[in-house]
Amino acid sequence: MTAPRIRVTALTPRMDLGPREARHLHVLRLRVGDALRVFDGQGAEAEAWIAELDAGRAVLTLGEALGGAAETPFPLTLAAALLKGDKLSDVVRAATELGVARVQLLVTARADARDIGAQKLLRLQRVAEEASKQSRRAVVPEVRAPLSLADFRWEGQLFVAQPGSASRIMALLDWGAPVTVLTGPEGGLTDAEVAELTGRGAHAVTLGPRILRAETAPVALLGAIAAAGGGED
Amino acid sequence: MTAPRIRVTALTPRMDLGPREARHLHVLRLRVGDALRVFDGQGAEAEAWIAELDAGRAVLTLGEALGGAAETPFPLTLAAALLKGDKLSDVVRAATELGVARVQLLVTARADARDIGAQKLLRLQRVAEEASKQSRRAVVPEVRAPLSLADFRWEGQLFVAQPGSASRIMALLDWGAPVTVLTGPEGGLTDAEVAELTGRGAHAVTLGPRILRAETAPVALLGAIAAAGGGED
Repeated sequence: MTAPRIRVTALTPRMDLGPREARHLHVLRLRVGDALRVFDGQGAEAEAWIAELDAGRAVLTLGEALGGAAETPFPLTLAAALLKGDKLSDVVRAATELGVARVQLLVTARADARDIGAQKLLRLQRVAEEASKQSRRAVVPEVRAPLSLADFRWEGQLFVAQPGSASRIMALLDWGAPVTVLTGPEGGLTDAEVAELTGRGAHAVTLGPRILRAETAPVALLGAIAAAGGGED
Repeated sequence: MTAPRIRVTALTPRMDLGPREARHLHVLRLRVGDALRVFDGQGAEAEAWIAELDAGRAVLTLGEALGGAAETPFPLTLAAALLKGDKLSDVVRAATELGVARVQLLVTARADARDIGAQKLLRLQRVAEEASKQSRRAVVPEVRAPLSLADFRWEGQLFVAQPGSASRIMALLDWGAPVTVLTGPEGGLTDAEVAELTGRGAHAVTLGPRILRAETAPVALLGAIAAAGGGED
C-alpha cells in the first residue's frame, strides 16, 4: 500500500493539523508513528510521520523531501448526464480546461436523451482536443460513450452534486485517491438514484442552497477542485 | 467594530484551529481573551473566545449560540471584464446561480470592448432576473455599467484570477468580510493591471496551471466559493 498523501499549508518541521484532518487520519486507520506523505499543493512534497493524534487534532513530523516532484494530482473524472443541444460541448470544453482526465457520459432517469450518436460522441472528443490545446494541456481527456447509472463504476471517491446536501466537497476530498465528480441532467437526479450512489459509497455534496443549471454544476464543482489544487497537467 | 466571524468544522465546547486559522487570527490582531463569532457553514453560529493562541495553532472556547441565525454569508461581487458576443450573458447567468449580489462590468487594457450600450446592459440585467428566478433566489443581482480598472473600488477582499499565482483562494478567504472576485478578458489582465490591483491590496489566486477561457474563470472561482459555503440567499 502506498503511503496516504495529506495536504498541508506548508512543509515545516512540525505540522499542526486541525480537527478535520485529524478525523481524516482516523478514517484512514492511521496511528502515531505511521508514515505518510505531505504536500503543499505548490510543488513541495515530503515524507512525514504522525507524532500526535487525538480526536480533535494531530501533529506531523517532517521527513525527507521527495525529490523535485511537481504536485502529482489525482486523476479527475467528470461523469455527466446527457444534456440537450450543445450544452454537453460547453461542459466538455470547461471540464477540459479545469483538468479532467476523462468525461464519462451517463444516461439517468431524467436525462434529456437515452443515447448519443457516434458522430456526436466524435464531435465531443474533438471539443476536448481543441480545448486541451487552447488551455495548453499535454493530455486530451477521453470522452466515453454513455453508461447507465447502474453500470457506472468508479475508483476512489465519487462526489455527487446534490442541492440540499449538508456536506462540502472540501471537507471530504482525499488528495491521495482518484476523484470523480458526478452531475445530473436538467431536472436533477432522482432521490432513488442519489440513494443508490451513496449506498455504493458516493458522497452527496452541496454547491449552496441555489438551484444550478445542469451545465453550471460541473463547472462549479470542478472549479472548486481546481482552486484547491486538483486536476491534471 | 463587529466581532470577526470565523468558520469552524463544528461548534464544540473546545475548538482547535490549525496554523492557517491561527495566522488569520494574528492578522486580525486578536489576542487571548478576545471575542469572536464562529459558524459551521450549515446554519449554526455562536459566540466564542480565544483561549489559546500561538504561531501555529489556536484554541477557541464556545460561548452562547446566536439564535437560529441561518448562515449569513458575505456579500459576493463579480467584477468581470467586458467580453465579446453573448459570453457576458453566460457569465451573468452562472454568476447569478452561484449567488453573487452584483456584477460590476470592467473595461481593461485587453478587453474586447471599451463600452457597452444601454440596451445591452438592460439585457444583461434581464438575464440576471431570469436566472435569479430559475435558481430560486430571492435577490436579483444588479449588473453595473462598466468602470475602468482605475476607477474600480471594492470593500473587503478582492481576489484576482491569475494563472501562475501560487496563492489559493481557500487559504485567504475571510468569511467575515465582503468578497469580490475579479476576472479578466480573453487574453487576460496585463501584468501592470495585476500589479496595480495587488498594490491596492488584492490577492492574485490560482485556478491551476491551465489556461482558462475568460468565461470559464468566473464560474470556476465562484464555484469554489459556493462549494465552501459562500454566496447569497
